[in-house]
This record gives sequence, structure tokens and C-alpha cells, in this order.
Amino acid sequence: MRLGILTGGGDCPGLNAVIRAVVKTAVLDYGFEVIGFLDGFKGVVENMAKPLSLEDVSGILPRGGTILGTSNRDNPFKYRTPEGIRDMSAQALENLSSWGIDLLITVGGDGTQAIALKFMEKGLKVIGIPKTIDNDLGGTDQTFGFDTARAVATEAVDRLHSTAESHHRIMVLEVMGRDAGWIALHAGLAGGADIILLPEIEFSLEKAAKAVERRERMGKRFSIVVVAEGARIGGKKVYLMKVDDPTQPMRLGGVGRVVAKTLQDAVGLEARYTILGHLQRGGSPTPFDRILATRFGYHAVKAAASGEKGKMVALKGNEIRLVDLAEAVGNPRRVEPNHELVLTARAIGVSFGDE
Amino acid sequence: MRLGILTGGGDCPGLNAVIRAVVKTAVLDYGFEVIGFLDGFKGVVENMAKPLSLEDVSGILPRGGTILGTSNRDNPFKYRTPEGIRDMSAQALENLSSWGIDLLITVGGDGTQAIALKFMEKGLKVIGIPKTIDNDLGGTDQTFGFDTARAVATEAVDRLHSTAESHHRIMVLEVMGRDAGWIALHAGLAGGADIILLPEIEFSLEKAAKAVERRERMGKRFSIVVVAEGARIGGKKVYLMKVDDPTQPMRLGGVGRVVAKTLQDAVGLEARYTILGHLQRGGSPTPFDRILATRFGYHAVKAAASGEKGKMVALKGNEIRLVDLAEAVGNPRRVEPNHELVLTARAIGVSFGDE
Amino acid sequence: MRLGILTGGGDCPGLNAVIRAVVKTAVLDYGFEVIGFLDGFKGVVENMAKPLSLEDVSGILPRGGTILGTSNRDNPFKYRTPEGIRDMSAQALENLSSWGIDLLITVGGDGTQAIALKFMEKGLKVIGIPKTIDNDLGGTDQTFGFDTARAVATEAVDRLHSTAESHHRIMVLEVMGRDAGWIALHAGLAGGADIILLPEIEFSLEKAAKAVERRERMGKRFSIVVVAEGARIGGKKVYLMKVDDPTQPMRLGGVGRVVAKTLQDAVGLEARYTILGHLQRGGSPTPFDRILATRFGYHAVKAAASGEKGKMVALKGNEIRLVDLAEAVGNPRRVEPNHELVLTARAIGVSFGDE
Amino acid sequence: MRLGILTGGGDCPGLNAVIRAVVKTAVLDYGFEVIGFLDGFKGVVENMAKPLSLEDVSGILPRGGTILGTSNRDNPFKYRTPEGIRDMSAQALENLSSWGIDLLITVGGDGTQAIALKFMEKGLKVIGIPKTIDNDLGGTDQTFGFDTARAVATEAVDRLHSTAESHHRIMVLEVMGRDAGWIALHAGLAGGADIILLPEIEFSLEKAAKAVERRERMGKRFSIVVVAEGARIGGKKVYLMKVDDPTQPMRLGGVGRVVAKTLQDAVGLEARYTILGHLQRGGSPTPFDRILATRFGYHAVKAAASGEKGKMVALKGNEIRLVDLAEAVGNPRRVEPNHELVLTARAIGVSFGDE
Repeated sequence: MRLGILTGGGDCPGLNAVIRAVVKTAVLDYGFEVIGFLDGFKGVVENMAKPLSLEDVSGILPRGGTILGTSNRDNPFKYRTPEGIRDMSAQALENLSSWGIDLLITVGGDGTQAIALKFMEKGLKVIGIPKTIDNDLGGTDQTFGFDTARAVATEAVDRLHSTAESHHRIMVLEVMGRDAGWIALHAGLAGGADIILLPEIEFSLEKAAKAVERRERMGKRFSIVVVAEGARIGGKKVYLMKVDDPTQPMRLGGVGRVVAKTLQDAVGLEARYTILGHLQRGGSPTPFDRILATRFGYHAVKAAASGEKGKMVALKGNEIRLVDLAEAVGNPRRVEPNHELVLTARAIGVSFGDE
Repeated sequence: MRLGILTGGGDCPGLNAVIRAVVKTAVLDYGFEVIGFLDGFKGVVENMAKPLSLEDVSGILPRGGTILGTSNRDNPFKYRTPEGIRDMSAQALENLSSWGIDLLITVGGDGTQAIALKFMEKGLKVIGIPKTIDNDLGGTDQTFGFDTARAVATEAVDRLHSTAESHHRIMVLEVMGRDAGWIALHAGLAGGADIILLPEIEFSLEKAAKAVERRERMGKRFSIVVVAEGARIGGKKVYLMKVDDPTQPMRLGGVGRVVAKTLQDAVGLEARYTILGHLQRGGSPTPFDRILATRFGYHAVKAAASGEKGKMVALKGNEIRLVDLAEAVGNPRRVEPNHELVLTARAIGVSFGDE
Repeated sequence: MRLGILTGGGDCPGLNAVIRAVVKTAVLDYGFEVIGFLDGFKGVVENMAKPLSLEDVSGILPRGGTILGTSNRDNPFKYRTPEGIRDMSAQALENLSSWGIDLLITVGGDGTQAIALKFMEKGLKVIGIPKTIDNDLGGTDQTFGFDTARAVATEAVDRLHSTAESHHRIMVLEVMGRDAGWIALHAGLAGGADIILLPEIEFSLEKAAKAVERRERMGKRFSIVVVAEGARIGGKKVYLMKVDDPTQPMRLGGVGRVVAKTLQDAVGLEARYTILGHLQRGGSPTPFDRILATRFGYHAVKAAASGEKGKMVALKGNEIRLVDLAEAVGNPRRVEPNHELVLTARAIGVSFGDE
Repeated sequence: MRLGILTGGGDCPGLNAVIRAVVKTAVLDYGFEVIGFLDGFKGVVENMAKPLSLEDVSGILPRGGTILGTSNRDNPFKYRTPEGIRDMSAQALENLSSWGIDLLITVGGDGTQAIALKFMEKGLKVIGIPKTIDNDLGGTDQTFGFDTARAVATEAVDRLHSTAESHHRIMVLEVMGRDAGWIALHAGLAGGADIILLPEIEFSLEKAAKAVERRERMGKRFSIVVVAEGARIGGKKVYLMKVDDPTQPMRLGGVGRVVAKTLQDAVGLEARYTILGHLQRGGSPTPFDRILATRFGYHAVKAAASGEKGKMVALKGNEIRLVDLAEAVGNPRRVEPNHELVLTARAIGVSFGDE
């Protein structure tokens, strides 16, 4: 059997661990071959690929990024060519066929798996491996990369504590999460934040300011705020991610900046804000992420060997299961307002800016 | 309501996070009072205790250890006194009563919860919070502290890689786990170890040596071995933990040393060994452990407020549940030889020294 | 003898280590008393102070921030009062006198030491301890805090590498340094940056873009740029630090954003930028910083005991020396364009955007 | 010009940074070629070598170990062959000549540089680059690797603090340093150890026990001891490093174990000990070590290009200088009993077990 593999979407700690586990399991356990396509689906369309040997994946387990490269805007069904947007899916299938690919393992998030699903409808065998920093992909309880992002964000909260305390300031940390506040919720809880602002829980900065003032009355002359980039101020998102969209200003520190300025004006304490940005994606994966990525890689190959297709490996509780790929696509996980972690945070005095 | 709390057994990252969550939830969410007993059950017998305020638990979330102190040999039912071993449980109950304790939260492992269970039989209301570095306590899928220990051990494996490769050596890392090999299994998998030796999987060093030789034939002139301290050589444990047992030599590097020497002699590569020891217990807890500890603390108080007793908070899948305290005691979790992580490790080429 | 101590200016890893060393040396080695003034010179004017015992400084060595609090805008000579700007120096001296302070140890940067110098002219005995994240204070080869800031910035460069490589992007990291590029130079060199942009070396983004293109021609489809916040684009600084200046927009990601956008437009590779900001100030100091801070604290007390005044402790090569406080003030250290580190960086292929 | 390079002796964080800087400077700045010899002088004798290109050194800056491999017992003048110990230096010179090596850069410690010196006497041009974890090499103020080892050891002290405090124990950490106590002194000072035991300062465990008791009287029911592996108990070293010497027992935890047991028996507090061992050598170098290694690499090539030979690059204060290779050999740096760091430590209450 000959497997193809690609990594799509934003990079994420653990991608190399997945690739390593796929290659090792395929070669050592099943005697399969593995072909790696470069830069996500772009490599499938442009026919950039190479066989992956045990030697190729040696030593990559602890490394961030992906040795295959990735791309987050190369949809073969709407492919940007010099002549404009084209459907290059037939070319992609032809290339896969020319490499003798029996099944394609697609490591990626919602966008990547949606494309995988469309290829499946055209007859390609695919097994998906879920990947998202934000942990908001449907069908799986957790994705690799999230634990690392959470660790980076928590360390940042830890660091901000000393400045907050020493200067009697409000320190605002903006973390990833355009639609889902998982990183903000977890890092806020783990870092001992006083206020956590999420896209899923409607809040007002007036109420957040009241929370800061309640702390002042208890003798705490500082506050730590963790805010997800997708949190809405007055019902509107204010983040602007890219530097190259000519119709929009560049990223301005989005919501974190607005939160800092508003709280400062309301409360009269100095405020500063920090945007973690890409630091959350980089660096060596945590043990949890290395292990989850390895499990996903192993189970994907095992599923392929068992004749499965159109499935995605997923974490359910402590176990790896296969779910329909369709279940994962367009079905994002959000923080429910009465999620147990939210209730836990409220019980220990964290404000979500809503009361 | 007035809650008592104590931390028993070996220290463990996350204990302070538990104490903080218990106090914050009790005071802020329920208006309860909390009395902290010092040095585990010793403080109950000796009546060393103090009220815990919000100020007492401020800033302790990221800190290792326990502000209450702990002790791992002070069983009130067999208490060491100048006059010999005595049953001091009546004194302990009297002390608890004199402080007006309605319910005692016992944070600890198997030993601590077994004592809690005996006090429960004498009429004391108790809620247990599970704690063990080794992750081998029954009744719960995971305990806080384990993720941190795994992180420390994985970082050690990462560090040993460079020496192993540069010197073409066998590097042996001995990690905690007297009866259960969870840390060795996880850190070995996360760190990319070549050989993992566990108490639960019978192995021979001859077969482990063969695994090293197979690697040499593939051009890999080094190997990383992770071994749990309780792994058996020829069916016998060789670890010796304490420095104060007059009848025995002090800890000699136990099994790690034997593994290193035997592999060196068998294979002809230089071997070195390292014993992680207490480094696995110390330092700031990981975000996962801080969050799990916080959840445990919150749910323990909630359970107490709901009139529960004789229960232990536990992680089941992703959820916190209450289980009977008895379920946790004397019911250790072991690595099943066909555990999914073992199969995953085997699939990617890890040897368990048994084939 | 009774010593006063205060920490002024921006917080900095190692301040607590200084306070600890001053108190321990004073109490244990000389039998002196130490009074800590709160929030920098503000505490001197407002008479907020407290005796510092050994217990007060126990356990603070590894902690970021300062237990005394700090302030970076409370100059007693131009003190903001409800009635407007006033000279409160006489009040400050009276307060010091009322506490029986024989000599004041001022831990701070250029601003703090300039104030100390003015007090000295009014008859106050002072010993300065140099502090600046940026390492640009005159009179000393290095200040504590810099090694930690460099470590945080280098770790960030390490993290950005994986995204840069996986996505074939230009990743821009903006680090501290309004007037001096030491952090950018060191972190760029330590992190393996391809381009380093400093306030002290005139550069053009056209030339920086050429450096990116040279890398592309060598098959390197990514570049890492480290830029000091005070680097000038077209001869002008573009950073805007505060969120509270009504006459100016809030900090917009200043120079990092401009560099990213310009390089992206010029080269055609995607660019992203990250601003480290306050993360550089926070968290546990590195061993170097803990040791240097401890040495400074010890030598400051020793100098006081020897009858010295108007001096600053300083690192010269490997030794701690006393220099005139005046030497440190208004005499900033800059990166000379032919500094050995710059030459080293150029030799290994780093571009400074100037050729 | 064609340069040879080898790395000899124990591995050390920063070796790859040196190799990278040598190759980059040689190729980019001077147009030289570089040949890497494998496994230290063994590669010179056995003629195992390969040209090093820019691609070979890409990405190795942050990695521990050495891509060239190393060896610490292959002296060409006393080379172990199947026929016994032979002088293979002529063979080595012939091999170097066959590769057209104009000058050999020897990266290593005392042993490696002593061999380099002997080759120099036979007419080979050499430039040495100093390397030792222990920081005890003569001729240079500091070597790369030391800052990383100190960081690992300090982190270990930090971790042991929580167990020490929670359990009221004496925690003993044994660190590297057979003849020189630099790591113990620095990590002890940076980690806030209470007692530091060095090879260079005669101590008695009775006096160390008294220091523990003095702490107990001040209410400190725990102590942290950092001991260098080469510290002498009763005038004798007790460490045993290798697992393969048939005439001696394997390493038994040497001095750390003896210190723990003796203090426990003397004071009546529980004691535990930890041996850091190889963890001090591994992993990613700190920014300081990466920069120092890069500077050494650059200056070595520059010296070679200038016609220098028989020199070693060295750090003197803040500057890189050339010293005679002979100056570094057989001239170890020791901790003087009145070294400023020792006086600093004493002033803040650290005991060296001698009073």
C-alpha cells in the first residue's frame, strides 16, 4: 500500500510528530510506502512530492513546524493560477494517481478536511488527522497543538504577573481564538487571570471595569485580563490579522488594545497589553501534544490498513476513535457559557465581564 | 460550613492550586470557612492548624509544593510516639471537632485516602482529592502532578539525546514508578526513546540488547532507554529509595544502573545512566495540572456543599465525577500490556525488551 | 547603620534578588537595618515605607518583579500633586530623615540615578545600583535583567523559526530597545536571525529586502528579522508606547509592522510580525541575572559600610567596581556600528539592512 | 585556504554553534573550505571526514551535541588499536595532509588542546577553541556550555525547593565539577542554596550540619545543599564515574549520597539527594553560550586567515583575545577560597561547611 500525506493550514506544534508516526508505523509495522506532498494541497496540484523514509523523520519528534511545509490558501477546487481562480482538482487527482497513492492522509483543520471531503466525493480514499491550535475542530475532544499553545499563553500570563504587581497595572494579554475562546479560557484559568473575555460569552467592558474595581477594594492594585482575539466589543470583532489586505488597516493589536485603553480610562489604573500572536504556534510541542500526534499518526495508518476511508481519527475521552470526516467539517466546538471550566472559573472569582 | 483540608504523601505539583481553589470556592462561592491542617495527618493528631484566608492563597497557583506542608508517614491509626506506635485516631477526631470541622478534604494518594476511609468509618465526613505523581491511583483517569512529572522526564530525554548521538552511547534514564510505568511509558513515547522498560511488562536485558543491535545495523549508533524505577530485573526490583534504612545500602541508582551496565557489556557501546529522582516532583505545575487541580478543588467544595461524603473527585474522560472513596483505595491503575499507548509505541518501533 | 532602599523605573527581573541581597548582607554581615520605600521615589515623597526583615526577603530570589513596587514617573523634584507639578524634594528628605536613613540605595536606570544624583547634591548619601532591561546604562558593562530579556527574545526567535520555515514566510520580531539595540543584536545573533535592524545602524528596507532575496536565491524560502522598537524608518522612529496619551494613537506595532508590510510588498513572500513587549520584563530571572543582582546588592551594602557615597556599583569585565554615580547618568551605552558582535554577525551572513 | 575542524572530549551545549560559525565565516567571509573530522581525533586517525557546506550547518545553532560526533579517549599519540596502544600521530598527519588541511581548528578542553599542542610541535598549524562544561580551562575567563550547565543546575535547585519546604527535608544536589566547583558555586548562589560544598574549600560535614541547625533555630525547617561531585569528604574524593571499570563499583551517587546520609544522621531531618549528571551537558544552549560559541568560531577563522597558529581564542572580560595554546593546557582555573562570589555568598549567609 502506498500512502500520501500532506499538512495543511496554519502550522502547529506536533505536525512533525504526526508525520514521523505515520512513516514509522507505515514502514515498520505494515511495510507500506509513504509519499509526502509539499506545502499542503499546493504540492498535490503542483506535483511537488517526495518519498519519506525512516531517515527523513529521524529526530523531528521534538521540532515545531512541519518538514513538509504547509499552506493555508491553496484549495485545489478554487486554485489561484496566473489565469485566475481555477478548479485544479482533476490535476490533483491525476498527480496522486501518478504517484500511485492508494490513500491520502490529510493533516489539517476545518479547511483542509473540507477539501479532503470533496476529494472523497470524487473517489479519493482519505483519512483525516485533526489539527488546530484553537481546539475548535468538531468531532474530536482535543487536537494536538492546543496543549502547547496553552502552555505558551500560560507562561505569558505568569510573566505579566510580576509587572502587573510591581507597577499596579492592568495587564491585558490577547491570545488566539477567532471564534472559540479555548486558549483564553484555559490559559486564563491556568495563569490565574482575574478577567477572561471570550467570543462565546457576551461581556461589557463596564462590567469588566467593575471587576477591576472590586479587586482594588480588596487591596489588589492590579489585574490580569486574558482576551481571545475574536472577543466582541459591542457585538463586533475588532481583530485584523493580515498585513497585506489593501482594503484594511494592518493588525492593530485588535481587541487587546481596546480592552486595555477602555479599562484604563474607566478605572484609572495604567494598562498595558501584549499580543502573543505567532509565538503560540511555534516551538517544541509539549509531551501531551507529541503523544497525541503520535497516536493520531499510528491510528490513521492502522485505519488505512483496515480498509477505512472517509474517516478522521479523533480523541474521545482518553481513546482514539474513528469518526466520519463529515462530522468534523463545519461543526466547530465552542465554549458553552455553562461549560464546567467556566463554572469553575466563576466559582474561584474569575470575571467573564458579564456580571 | 467549616471545611478542613490537609495534604498528605509525597509533594506533587498542583497541591497549592488545589488549596487555592478550595479556599476561593469555599469563601467566594459558598461563604464557608477553611481550616488548613499542617503536615498531613500529623497536623490533625498534633493539632497544628490555621484558618486559610483568600490572602493566604494569593499567588500560590504557579508554585510547586504545598503551603500546608506534608508528611508521608504519619498514620493516626499507627502513630509514632515517643512511647511507640499508638492509635491516635480518637485524638485526631477530637482535634477536628475542637476546630468545628464539618468535613475534611483529604488531598493525597492511596495511603492518605485509605486513612480517610478509616476515619469515615468512624463517622468523619470526608471528601478525597486524588494526588499521585505516578498516575496509578484507582478511580480516576488522571491525577494532577503527572503531567508535570511527564514534562520534566520528557525534557530529560530530550537533553540526553544530544549526548547519546554525539558520543554514540546508550543513555539510560530512570524515572519514577515503583509499581506503575506511566511516567516511563509517556516520557519514553514523548521523548522518542528507543527502549522502554516497565514494571508491568516482563522483559529481559538480552532482548533489550538485541534492540540496540538492530538499531546499530540500521546505522543508529546510539540508543535511549527509559526505565521505571520499579522495573524488575530477573523478576526482582532493585531500587532502594531511602538514605536512612540501616539494614540496606542507600539508593544506588537501582535499576537504571543495572540496565546501563548490562547493555554496555552486551553490546559494546558505552552506556551512561541518569536518575531523575525528586526533580520530577518539584517546580511549577503545567497548565494541565493547574487546571485539573483547580477543578478538583472546586468540585470537592461543591460536593461538600451538596451534602456528599465518603466520595473522591475524579477525572473520567473529560469530566469531573464523584466516585466512592473506597473505589480509589487499594485499586491501583497499572499499564496493561496491550494498552493502546503500548501498541502505539510498538508500532513506531519502540522495544519493551520482550521480543 | 540604617539603609533605605527603593526600586524605580520599569520592572526588571532581578530586582527582588537585589533587595534580598541587600537585606541579607545588611542584617547578617553588618548588623544594619534596612527600610524599604514603596513604589520608587513615590514612597519617599508619600512616606510609604516599611522595615525589611530576613523573613520579608525569604523565597523572593527566583521571582520577577519587585516586592517594593516601582513607579516610573514620580520625580520628587517635579512631583505631580493635585495642585500641579511641585518640587517635593524637601518633603522627601524630611521623610528619609524621619526614618533615620543614613544612606539610600537607589535601584534603577538613568532616570532613577539622575534623581539620586540631585538628592546627593542636597546632602543625601546615596549608592546606586544600575538596572535596565535594555543594557544601555552608562558606567557598567552589563545590568541585571538584560540576560533574562535576551533569553525571552531568543526563545521567541526560536519559536518563529518553525512558522517561518513551514510557511515560507518572513517573520518579524520587534523587541525592546528605544535607543539601544542590544536586545535585538544579542537575540538576533543567538536566535540565528537573518536580518537585524538597530537604532544605531542606519538601514533601508530596500537593502533588507535584497537580503531576503539573496536568501531565496540560495534556496532559503524564509527569513527571520529582529528589529529594535527604536529602529528608524527613513530616519524616524515609529513606535508609540502608551495607551493613554490622548494626543497620539495607541501603540500600533510600530516599526515591526512597517518592516513586515514593506518587506512583504517588496519581496512577495508573506510576512507576519510579533511584538514581544512586556513579556521581556517578566518572569523568573536567569542564573546570570540572579547572581549579578546578588553581587550588586552585596557590594552596595559593603560600599555603604565603607563610607562610600555618590557611587554606583558596576560590572567591569568580570569584576564589580564602584564608579561615580555621575558617570552612569546621561551617558548611555550604544551599539557601535563596528562593535565586535556586529562584525561577528556580518561575518556569518547576517544583514543589518545597510548593504 | 582549507580548514579542518574537530570536536573532542565530552559533549557540551554550543559545539554546533561553533561549527556553524566556523563554516559560515569561512565560506561567506573568506571563501575558505572546511573539512569536518568525525568523533574528535579518532576521525583524524581513522580518516573519517567530510566537507562541511552551508547547508550542513543550517538549523544547528539551537541544538545540543555536535554534528561531528566526539570522543573522549582517542589520543593519536597513545591510540588504542587491536594490537595495543600505538602512536598514530604520523598517520593522523598524513590523513590531514591528504585532505589538504592548512590549519586544524580543535574544539575541546584540556585533553584535546594538549593533543593539539603536541601536533603543533610536529608542525601542524592549529587554532584551539576552548570547551568545558566545568569552566575550569585555563587561558579564558569563560567557556561556552557553562552558562547552560549552570541554568540546568539552577533550575534543579529551584525544583528541589518545593520538596524541601513541603517535607521539611534536607535536599542535596550533586552537580558536575571534579576538580573545580564553578557549577556548584554559581548554581548554589543562583538557586538560593543554603550550603555549597566545593573541591577547593575544605569543609567538614559536622560544620555543614551546624549550618542546618542554625537554620532550624531561625524557623527554617529545610535546607538546600549543592555539592560538586569532586568535593572531598575527609580529604578524599568519592565519586566514581564510569559503569565499565571492572576494578571499581559503579557510580554510587558519590559525594551527594554521603552528604545526605551524614547530614540526616547528624541533624535528624530527612535527607534526599539527586545527581544531575548528564542532564547538565544536554539540550539547547542558552543565548550566552550560543553567542560566545559563535564569537569563538568567527575569531578562530579570522585568526587562521591572519596567519596565526598555536593560539587559542579566549574570552577576557568582554573581549575575545588570542592566547598561546600552551597557556590553556595544564593550567586549570579553580575557585579561589576568597573569590568574590564566595565572599558574596558568605555575606548573604551561605555556608561553605568550613565554619
